[in-house]
This record gives sequence, C-alpha cells and structure tokens, in this order.
Amino acid sequence: MKNKTYKIGIDIGGTNMKAVLFDGEKVIKSYKLGTPKDSLDHLLIMLGALIEPLLEKAKKDKMKVSKVGLSVAGCHDFDKKIIACSPNLPFLNGINLGEKLEEKINLPVIMDNDANCFLLAEAKFGAVKKYKNSYGLIVSTGIGGAWFFDEKIYRKGGEPGAMLIDFTDLIILEKAYQKLNQNNSAILATEAYRGDVLAQKAYKEIGSLLGVSLANIVNLIAPEIIVIGGGATNSSDLFFPQIKKSMSEYISNPNSKKTKIVKSKLGEDAGSIGAALLINDK
Amino acid sequence: MKNKTYKIGIDIGGTNMKAVLFDGEKVIKSYKLGTPKDSLDHLLIMLGALIEPLLEKAKKDKMKVSKVGLSVAGCHDFDKKIIACSPNLPFLNGINLGEKLEEKINLPVIMDNDANCFLLAEAKFGAVKKYKNSYGLIVSTGIGGAWFFDEKIYRKGGEPGAMLIDFTDLIILEKAYQKLNQNNSAILATEAYRGDVLAQKAYKEIGSLLGVSLANIVNLIAPEIIVIGGGATNSSDLFFPQIKKSMSEYISNPNSKKTKIVKSKLGEDAGSIGAALLINDK
Repeated sequence: MKNKTYKIGIDIGGTNMKAVLFDGEKVIKSYKLGTPKDSLDHLLIMLGALIEPLLEKAKKDKMKVSKVGLSVAGCHDFDKKIIACSPNLPFLNGINLGEKLEEKINLPVIMDNDANCFLLAEAKFGAVKKYKNSYGLIVSTGIGGAWFFDEKIYRKGGEPGAMLIDFTDLIILEKAYQKLNQNNSAILATEAYRGDVLAQKAYKEIGSLLGVSLANIVNLIAPEIIVIGGGATNSSDLFFPQIKKSMSEYISNPNSKKTKIVKSKLGEDAGSIGAALLINDK
Repeated sequence: MKNKTYKIGIDIGGTNMKAVLFDGEKVIKSYKLGTPKDSLDHLLIMLGALIEPLLEKAKKDKMKVSKVGLSVAGCHDFDKKIIACSPNLPFLNGINLGEKLEEKINLPVIMDNDANCFLLAEAKFGAVKKYKNSYGLIVSTGIGGAWFFDEKIYRKGGEPGAMLIDFTDLIILEKAYQKLNQNNSAILATEAYRGDVLAQKAYKEIGSLLGVSLANIVNLIAPEIIVIGGGATNSSDLFFPQIKKSMSEYISNPNSKKTKIVKSKLGEDAGSIGAALLINDK
C-alpha cells in the first residue's frame, strides 16, 4: 500500500552504506557511499551526506519524509536502544546511534540489526512473503539470523553465528564457516567454478555446516521456510544441495523434514528496504 | 482460580503413568500405574483403569469432569493430532491417541508432549510463574524441551535433544548425554555423591554439555529463565554450577548472559498437572 509520506531506509554495512527513498511499495531513489571506519562523528557526517540526495528528491516530489530506518550489523539491546556489540565498527559499541542521528538530521530514527531488516523486507516483499513463519540467515563476512512469525520479527536472541557446533574442539558456527571459506567467499567461489576440487570440497563442507546448523534451528523453532541472504547467495548453487541434504538428515521431526529453503529475492537492497519498513513494524 | 468442574491430567511415562484430579488450583486426588509396553489395546484398558478412581472421587464430590489432558513423550504432529515418533512406546507411532481414548472413556481428550506439559505447569504454578518468556528442559532418559512465551506454549519445534553438538563426529546432544551418564543417572549420581572422581568428572561434562546446548538456545530465542525438570533434577547440585559456567561462556549477547536457570518446583507432578492445564491452554 502506497503511503502518504516517504520513508528513508539506511543499511550500514562493513564496506558500504546504502540508503533508499521508499514510498511504501517501491524504491523511488537510492544512494550509496563507503562506510567511514574511523569515528562516530565521521559516520554521522557521512550519514547526513548519504540521505541528502534523497531528502532533495522528496522535496522535489512535494512529499514529506516521515521517518528514517537504520540497519546496523551486531547485537542490539532493544530495551536500552544501543548497539551492544558491533563486529565492523567498534566505536558504535554502547552507542544509541538512532538518537545521535535524530539530533543531526532532525527526523525520527528507528534502528534494528541487519538480519532483522533483511528478513523483514523478504517477508513483506521478497522470497518468503507468502509464509507466516520464516527464518532468515545472512551468510556474509559473519553469520546472522532473524525469525519472522505472528506478523512480526522476534527481537530477542537471533545469534545463530554463535552456535557451538563442535563441543569437543569448542568451535562456533561463524568461526568454522570463516575457516572453511578462508575469509574470502569471492575467491573461493571463483576457484570452485573453475573446477578446483579443494574449493568445491570446501563449499560442500560449508553446505554441510550450514545444513546441520539450520537443522538445529528447525529442531528448536520449526519455521516453514528459510531464506538465505548475504554475499554467499551469489554462489548458492555451490552449497545449497548439501545444505538441503544435511538439513533433511538432522531434522528430527518427520513433519519438519520438508522445511523449504530459498535464497534472497531482494538481494543487496533487502537491508535498506527492511530498514525503511521498520517504521511500520515497530 | 477454582473451576466449576474438575479436570483429569494424565502423564504417560516410559515406566509409570500418573493421573491427577485437578480443580484448577490444586490436586484433589492422584493415582499411578505401570505403563503397559505391549500394545495400544492394553494401554487403553490401563488408562481406563487409571482414571477410574478419579472419576469415582469426582462423582462423590458431585463434580463434573469436563475434560482429560494427556501428556505423552515424543514428537507430535499437532495438525494431524497424532504422535509422529514415540521413543518409549513404538505402537503409538502415527496414532491419534486422544481420539482412541475419547471413544473409550466418553470424555473430551486433549494431548500434548511431556515437555510442553511440564513447562505449562511450571509456568502457571511452579518455578517460572513470574516470567513471560521461559524455556523448559526435561533431562531424563532422553532430553526434551519446550518454550513458553506470549502467555502460551510455542508448539512447533521443541526438539533440543536432536541438537547436533559435534559437527566432526556427528553427535547429537541426547546421544552425548546418554553416553556420559551411561544410561543410568541414578547409579552415576550415587557414585558421584560417594566421592567417585570419574563419576564427578562425568557430571561436570554433563553440565558443560547442557550448558553449551542451553547457550545455543539462548543465542537463538533468548528466554528470561530456564527451568530444568526430569529425573536429573534430583542430582542437580552435581552439574548446575558447570551449566551456569558454560552458559555464561557461550552466550554471545552480553544482555543474555544473565539468563537465570532454576530447577523444577513441581517435580514428578509437573507432567500430569500440565496435562490437566492443557484444557485451558488450547
């Protein structure tokens, strides 16, 4: 449903920041800048610069921008409205970034983590929009997760990357994944597509790792469908078959074995669109 | 709140079956029989015998029994109302036990799994009654789990025992637990209390195993409090300190590190009381 006002959604990634001007059903204009990694002040200045062209476009269209949504990776403390641990931008730890940005741009700001924004967008407009109970896994530099059910995002927990998947050697999912992809999925994928046997084997192991982790998730909360997002979706054909195989093997309830798994439909726009949707969701 | 009718709650365990006559706030009368392991027909006959003294007591009190609740271990298909996998009584697989019992006793029957009934009782009258978001773990012959939030039991998933906790050696939580306690917690506990160093070490490892598994659960759904039930609670002092240590180590969000952990307050009555409460809950 088209809204009477525009919203702005911003996705602050480890490398780039993307902002969209959103009318409630489609992106009117988008803009992208590199993420400043040195200080909060610099980040706030660049966020101002990022949304400027969008505010101008809104002015030209004679539309009001009612609110700004912010997607930031890391664990959030939703009660205190702070980022409790930021993997990419350590200067954000303990900061109420929403409040800081509000002071700067004089517009209401609402903030959430990247996985929640990604899944919100996919649940409203993307790959899982027909489902009432879906889980979103972002596989990128790290691993993040979100859960949508009862018409909303469940905002506690959501740290699947911290799942301990090797009790003997004390290895958590995210570290195991980073070891397998050698911290560079793009290079590993190129090698695998060229026919490198070791790279293909690594991808099969990544699929197996993600598959058992998702089986653990299904055994606990049983979503109807899982959507995978993040950089890794570009090479999803290298590991999706193994994910499906491992999931089916380790899901215990026969009825959950049919849990669907799909890849992101909105791609790299999911984060900023989801951030724009936060406004209606909270 | 005292109800105008009585309810009956039945807990069908691997060894015994227990039934309570419940007035909505307290147990009026209870009765126990061994669980028949040979056939469905025999089970139905014995269930009839189990509730007979309770029906008589109700009659004597001039009270109507409005419904019967049934707690049965295993994974349930709540849509089809069947038990999809029964670990103790294989003849129940694929059976709508509620319907069969209704035909026999001529009273409405409602069924759920043992972990859901346990947590429902603890959430309404027991150890977690002040909390809005609690997780229940039953540690007995096997390992079962349930989640209470938004005033009700979340009835999908709930199979923490199936959690793969060793990706390399492909070991699931329940099997690892059964290997550590050598399928007999009672003997292992006696040895540990007598000072046997190996038995104490095994209990420490059980605590560590349950602690990381609960950390995985907290990282996904972040309950405020966890309640442990089942036979293992009798020797909880042997492994609770290690559970707490491991949980705190592997919970990733700083705010969730304070997640409380307590033991069952209702003990072996939790299952049958929870079954009696099902009536109001569904």
